[in-house]
Amino acid sequence: MTTPEFSFTLAGQDGRARAGMLKTAHGEVPTPTFMAVGTAGTVKAMTADAVRATGAKIVLGNTYHLMLRPTAERVARLGGLHKMMDWPGPILTDSGGFQIMSLAKLRRLEEKGVTFRSHIDGTTYELTPEYSTEIQHLLDSTITMQLDECTKFPATHREAKDSMELSIRWAKRSRDAFITRPGYGQFGIMQGNVYEDLRHYSALALVDLDFEGYAIGGLAVGEGQAVMFEVLDYCTDFLPVSKPRYLMGVGTPDDLLGSVARGVDMFDCVMPTRAGRTARAFTAKGVFNMRNARFQDDTRALDENCACLCCTRHTRAYLHHLFRCEEMLGPMLLTTHNLTYYQSLMQGARAAILTREYESYCADVRDNWQRGPDS
Amino acid sequence: MTTPEFSFTLAGQDGRARAGMLKTAHGEVPTPTFMAVGTAGTVKAMTADAVRATGAKIVLGNTYHLMLRPTAERVARLGGLHKMMDWPGPILTDSGGFQIMSLAKLRRLEEKGVTFRSHIDGTTYELTPEYSTEIQHLLDSTITMQLDECTKFPATHREAKDSMELSIRWAKRSRDAFITRPGYGQFGIMQGNVYEDLRHYSALALVDLDFEGYAIGGLAVGEGQAVMFEVLDYCTDFLPVSKPRYLMGVGTPDDLLGSVARGVDMFDCVMPTRAGRTARAFTAKGVFNMRNARFQDDTRALDENCACLCCTRHTRAYLHHLFRCEEMLGPMLLTTHNLTYYQSLMQGARAAILTREYESYCADVRDNWQRGPDS
Repeated sequence: MTTPEFSFTLAGQDGRARAGMLKTAHGEVPTPTFMAVGTAGTVKAMTADAVRATGAKIVLGNTYHLMLRPTAERVARLGGLHKMMDWPGPILTDSGGFQIMSLAKLRRLEEKGVTFRSHIDGTTYELTPEYSTEIQHLLDSTITMQLDECTKFPATHREAKDSMELSIRWAKRSRDAFITRPGYGQFGIMQGNVYEDLRHYSALALVDLDFEGYAIGGLAVGEGQAVMFEVLDYCTDFLPVSKPRYLMGVGTPDDLLGSVARGVDMFDCVMPTRAGRTARAFTAKGVFNMRNARFQDDTRALDENCACLCCTRHTRAYLHHLFRCEEMLGPMLLTTHNLTYYQSLMQGARAAILTREYESYCADVRDNWQRGPDS
Repeated sequence: MTTPEFSFTLAGQDGRARAGMLKTAHGEVPTPTFMAVGTAGTVKAMTADAVRATGAKIVLGNTYHLMLRPTAERVARLGGLHKMMDWPGPILTDSGGFQIMSLAKLRRLEEKGVTFRSHIDGTTYELTPEYSTEIQHLLDSTITMQLDECTKFPATHREAKDSMELSIRWAKRSRDAFITRPGYGQFGIMQGNVYEDLRHYSALALVDLDFEGYAIGGLAVGEGQAVMFEVLDYCTDFLPVSKPRYLMGVGTPDDLLGSVARGVDMFDCVMPTRAGRTARAFTAKGVFNMRNARFQDDTRALDENCACLCCTRHTRAYLHHLFRCEEMLGPMLLTTHNLTYYQSLMQGARAAILTREYESYCADVRDNWQRGPDS
């Protein structure tokens, strides 16, 4: 068996929305796609089989968490992240940079990289573009992300420019450090905050480095959906048509629909998993809080058209009971459902793009969200 | 389809150890059997499918927890406990009495029953033998337990006698309140503490009431294994050969082996599930603490001959990592393993009894426990 090249082909387009197929050493991923977040080598509250059953084709691992525990070297000794977590499919890992900024203590950002202390035991680490790339190699990540600096929001044009330029220099160093293997890829990350000229500059510089894909970073950091869509309105056009586009850390189901409409192919977000642990259900009829007493005698399925374990075997009343009693099965079942909902939203989007009905698909989905649990 | 009668037949004996078959309205249970504890309508950290996959044939529900949340009336409206928790198989429910004594506040024990305040919201409830039986009927419990008083340990002969006699009066009232249905049964509970004459008296009085099975209560309450076995040495012989015998709240794997040798058929205990949440693994080579650093690079299966999801898909190193990071998947996988271990211990016991090799089976199992994780 020959390992396939890392490739991305478009299967269809509807306006700017794209339906594609990503091929990797670890399997194929129809796009648009949502990547479930498996922070520390596990999608929280889910067995790997349960993740597969949601329809997920690719998951994300967090370099920051994994480099601290169990360490990249140990993951490598255990045969790589795929083997360790029983996920033979594609895995994308982030660079660690974003979570250093949000979680670590005593961060120091310099030209060479970031020095930080672990939020767990205070140990000092230095993460450079080269080391981040090496760690992701040790993890056996299918898609490696460059180390970047995620510019804060709001930022002046000057701040955003300096930050973006640092990310470009780090992109070059990350690219140089990446060891090419058949079926593996590395993505560069566009920065530039809300400034069109900077986004354009960033994209051109990254494209020069010929990455296997491009991420759009520095969004979903507090700017709001309207501003995010405004930035996306221009910035996907700066990226090559033939490469996958990944919008990092996004988002709500509505964010996903709007971003797909603007030419994005890949997403990741903790939202469906975190919501699953805090009783928030994403459904075809909107978002429900399962702790609400309205559900205590509700014998209907959470989402009547959903084929997940939670919806086919249990009632809203049982879910409500599990969350009231703080039983682990509540988060287990609701994470299963939420991830299944996100996957089916993206599967539906793909099908609609292929038949050039994406706009009416989105309109129908959004109409349904207004219906509420009792409809 | 006709509902089968509730029945128990012996398939074999080896010394006092018994292999039997319990038939109920909800399915058959080969004995000896271990019942996983599903306190509040869920075996903690397990989907119903995962419980089935451990080999479990019957689970236990706690009347005390269920009467408080979601309430017996609501369970009935939701179609019964089987339907609510997606467990069509047999369910045994306790009477609620034991947990009132251990969990509730402001308990008052009187001839008519127990008055207590909920540990959750302070609401006052009264549980009588009649009401406990009615609640279990509402839950649609396959096997209803009588309300009893579990005598404390140590207790004087006088205290134990008074308590046991109260339990006998409650047994009569529970029996009178039980609504007979094909395939459903009710068990009486023998008390009498460590006093042979009281145990004998209790057994005779219960047998007069012709229950479908008999539990041995008031053990595993601090007396230690040696005393427990001493009591079992005589008290199983006071019970009819043709009815199942259930030792309540027991115990360690070694407790189970020794109790089966003394003629017990059924067990329940939170030990394998609770241990699964606190990183304690029950294995063929003894009990391991998965948080121990010795496992951090151990790429072997937790228990090499175990066919569970945890042992066939993951390493000890991954389990160690999950517990260190306090990931829910740690408890999920280890509960799966521990319950599978308990089930296979009982399956092995049954097979050995049928071939009259129970003594050597126990000797082999106990020898193996001494081997430790590195053997």
